[in-house]
Amino acid sequence: MTAHSSHDYRRPLDGVRIVEVSSFVASPLCGVTLAQLGAEVIRVDPVGGAADVHRWPRTDGHNAAPVGTSIYWTGLNKGKRSVTADLRSDAGQELVRRLILDSGPGGGILVTNSGGRQWMSHERLAAERADVITLELLGGSDGRPAVDYTVNAGLGFPLLTGPEGHSAPVNHVLPAWDVVCGLYAALAVTAAVRRREQTGDGSAIRLPLEDTALSVASTLGYLTEPQVNAHSRVSTGNDVYGTYGTDFATADGDRVMVVALTPRHFRDLTELTGTTAAVAAVGEALGADFSQESDRYLHRQVLSALFAPWFGTHTTAEVESALAASSVLAQRYRTFDDVVAQGILAENPLFAALDQPGVGNHLAAASPARFDGHYLHVGPAEALGESTEAFQ
Amino acid sequence: MTAHSSHDYRRPLDGVRIVEVSSFVASPLCGVTLAQLGAEVIRVDPVGGAADVHRWPRTDGHNAAPVGTSIYWTGLNKGKRSVTADLRSDAGQELVRRLILDSGPGGGILVTNSGGRQWMSHERLAAERADVITLELLGGSDGRPAVDYTVNAGLGFPLLTGPEGHSAPVNHVLPAWDVVCGLYAALAVTAAVRRREQTGDGSAIRLPLEDTALSVASTLGYLTEPQVNAHSRVSTGNDVYGTYGTDFATADGDRVMVVALTPRHFRDLTELTGTTAAVAAVGEALGADFSQESDRYLHRQVLSALFAPWFGTHTTAEVESALAASSVLAQRYRTFDDVVAQGILAENPLFAALDQPGVGNHLAAASPARFDGHYLHVGPAEALGESTEAFQ
Repeated sequence: MTAHSSHDYRRPLDGVRIVEVSSFVASPLCGVTLAQLGAEVIRVDPVGGAADVHRWPRTDGHNAAPVGTSIYWTGLNKGKRSVTADLRSDAGQELVRRLILDSGPGGGILVTNSGGRQWMSHERLAAERADVITLELLGGSDGRPAVDYTVNAGLGFPLLTGPEGHSAPVNHVLPAWDVVCGLYAALAVTAAVRRREQTGDGSAIRLPLEDTALSVASTLGYLTEPQVNAHSRVSTGNDVYGTYGTDFATADGDRVMVVALTPRHFRDLTELTGTTAAVAAVGEALGADFSQESDRYLHRQVLSALFAPWFGTHTTAEVESALAASSVLAQRYRTFDDVVAQGILAENPLFAALDQPGVGNHLAAASPARFDGHYLHVGPAEALGESTEAFQ
Repeated sequence: MTAHSSHDYRRPLDGVRIVEVSSFVASPLCGVTLAQLGAEVIRVDPVGGAADVHRWPRTDGHNAAPVGTSIYWTGLNKGKRSVTADLRSDAGQELVRRLILDSGPGGGILVTNSGGRQWMSHERLAAERADVITLELLGGSDGRPAVDYTVNAGLGFPLLTGPEGHSAPVNHVLPAWDVVCGLYAALAVTAAVRRREQTGDGSAIRLPLEDTALSVASTLGYLTEPQVNAHSRVSTGNDVYGTYGTDFATADGDRVMVVALTPRHFRDLTELTGTTAAVAAVGEALGADFSQESDRYLHRQVLSALFAPWFGTHTTAEVESALAASSVLAQRYRTFDDVVAQGILAENPLFAALDQPGVGNHLAAASPARFDGHYLHVGPAEALGESTEAFQ
C-alpha cells in the first residue's frame, strides 16, 4: 500500500481477509496486528464513524496537520481499508455480510465488539458459508458491558499499585487488558484460520475482556495464592515482588529503576555502590543468604537503605554510566517526550516514517515480531469511508 | 491429559509441537497459551531448573500442599511436558535438537528466551530441517538484557501513573509487557505455522520485549503525540484520559470506579446522583456541551465534585445497586482475596478444578477465548524433569 510494505516478502497471513466491525481499543488492535502480519483488514463503521472516531488524543494543529484528528483512531486503524455503511438498513447489513462471505478461501472472517446483532450473528453467516470464522469481543464474562478500567477495578491490581502507604487504588494508565484482549483475539483468529485450512471447519469464538484479565491473573498466580495460601501478597510500592528491584533518586533528582535478578547482578550492585562489606556484615548479622533471591527480597528495605546514598550522591550521568558498565538491569525513568527527544525511535529500525493524512509525518512502529529480518510495517489509516465505493 | 482436556474437540493447534527453552514470564506464557490452543508443548530446563524454578509466590503449607512450591512456575507451565538436560554437554544439546527436529510435520518449532546459543541457533537447526520455525525473545531492542520493570521505566507510563500530585514514578504491578510479549510470541509462532503449512517455509522470528512495548505505545498514540503535538498529556491520576471516568468513595469507605463513555451513560449518572439540574446549570455557565466526551473530560473535576456527595452518603450496597440498575459502567475495587471469597471464580465456567501436585486443588482458568462453546483448559504442570525419560 505504501513505502512501508515489503512487497517482496510473503507475510505469514498473506491471503487472509478480515472484516472488522469494531471500535475502541481491543478489537481495532486485533485488526492492525493482523494487518501487520499480512492480512487484508477492512474496518466497517456506521456512516459518520463509531463512538471512537474523535477520541483523544487529537492533533493540536502542529506538524502541518489540522486540529482535531484523532491520533488514537488513526493509530489503531493503520494498514486497514475503511468502509462505512448504514448498519440499520437492509442494504448496509447485506453489504457487510457480502464483504465477509464473498471473500475467497482466506476470507469469511468477522471480528467484532458489536455482538448481539442478529443480522451478522455466527449462525446467520454460517448458514451461507459453513466455514465462517467469527470472533466476538465481549465486556463482562456474562456479556454485560465492561471496559478496561472497570475490569481492572474488579480484579485486585489497583489496590496493590501505588506508593507504599497509599491505601487508595491506583489505576494503570496503559489499558493493559484492552491490549492483552486484542492480542488474544488476533491469536485466536489466526489459530482458527490454521485449523480451517487443515480441516475445513469454521469457528465461533467468544472472548470477554473480563475473562482475559481473569485468565492472565490465574496463570500468573494472583488468583491461585488466595485459594491455597493463608496470606496473600501485600503492596510493595515500586519494589519488585519476590526478588530484588526498586528505584532510587540520583543527585539530579531523576529516578532510576534497578533490578538484580541473579547473584551476579547483586554482586555487581554492591560493588558499584561500594557496599560489599556492609552488605556482607548485614547478611551475617541477620542470618540472610543474599545469593538467594528470597533473602534479597525479604531484606530489601535494609539493602535499599545501604544502596541509596551512592545513588543520591552521584549525578544521573554518573549513575547511568556505572550501571551500564555492570551486569545490573537498570533504566532511568523517562517521559514519552524524553523517549522521542532522545532519538530512541529514530535509531530503532522498528520505526519508519509514516505520512498519516490528518496527523502528518511521524515515526510509527511495525509489529514487534521481526520475521526473517523483516520489520512488518503497514501504511496509514484510510480516511473514514475511503474504500466504501471500492467495495460496493 | 486430565479431566480438563476436551478429548472430543479438535483444538485449533492440534498436531503442532513446540519446544520451549525458557524461563520467567513471557516465554513460558507463550507456551501455556499455545498448549491451551492444542499444541503439544515441551519445556526444556537445565538439570535442577532454570532461574525461575523457585520464584515467588510459593505455597505456604496450607491447602494440603508442602511449603515452597512455586505457584508462579506451576501456573506458567500448566499443560506442558517437562524435560531436563545438561545443556552444557554435547549429549544434552543433541537431545534438545532432536526434540525440535525429529517431531513430524507439526514440529520443528523452538521458542526461547535463551538466545545466542550457537548449538540451537536458527542457522544450525535450519541446516538440518529447512522448515524450522524459531522464535527468540530478547530484552532490549539491541539484544541487551532488559526486564519488564526496566522497559516500563524507559517508556513513560510510570511517570503518568499514580495519585495526582505524586510526582515520582509508579510501577505497574501487573508485568504487562511480559504478558503482551508472551502473547505476541504465541501469535507470531501460530502465524508462522500457518505460512509453513501453506508454503513449506520456516521462519526466524525475533521479538524484543522493548520493541513490544514501543510498538504498542506507538499504535496507541503515546509515542505519536510528542512527535506531532506541541503539548503531551499530563498525569490525570485515576481519571480516564479523554472521556469521563473516575473513582469515588462510598459511605463505607470503599471505592468504586465509574465510567460514562456515552451520552446515555452520562445522563444516567447525573440522574442517579440527583445532579441533572446542577450539571445542566454548570454546563450552561461554562459553555460546555456535556453530550460531547471532550467536554465531559475537560470539566471532569467540577463534574466529579458534583457527583461525589451522592457516593459519599450512600453505602456500598446502595451504590452498587443503583449503578447496576443504570447503564453506567461501574465496578467496586476488589482485592484478589475478595475475588476468590465472593465466588467470582466458582461461578465462571472459565475456571475448573485443577489438582496441581505441590500446590493442591484449586480453580484455574482456561484460555479466555472460547471456541465453539468449549473452554480450552489444560492439565497441571509436570514436575521438573517428569518427562525426561519419555523423550530419551
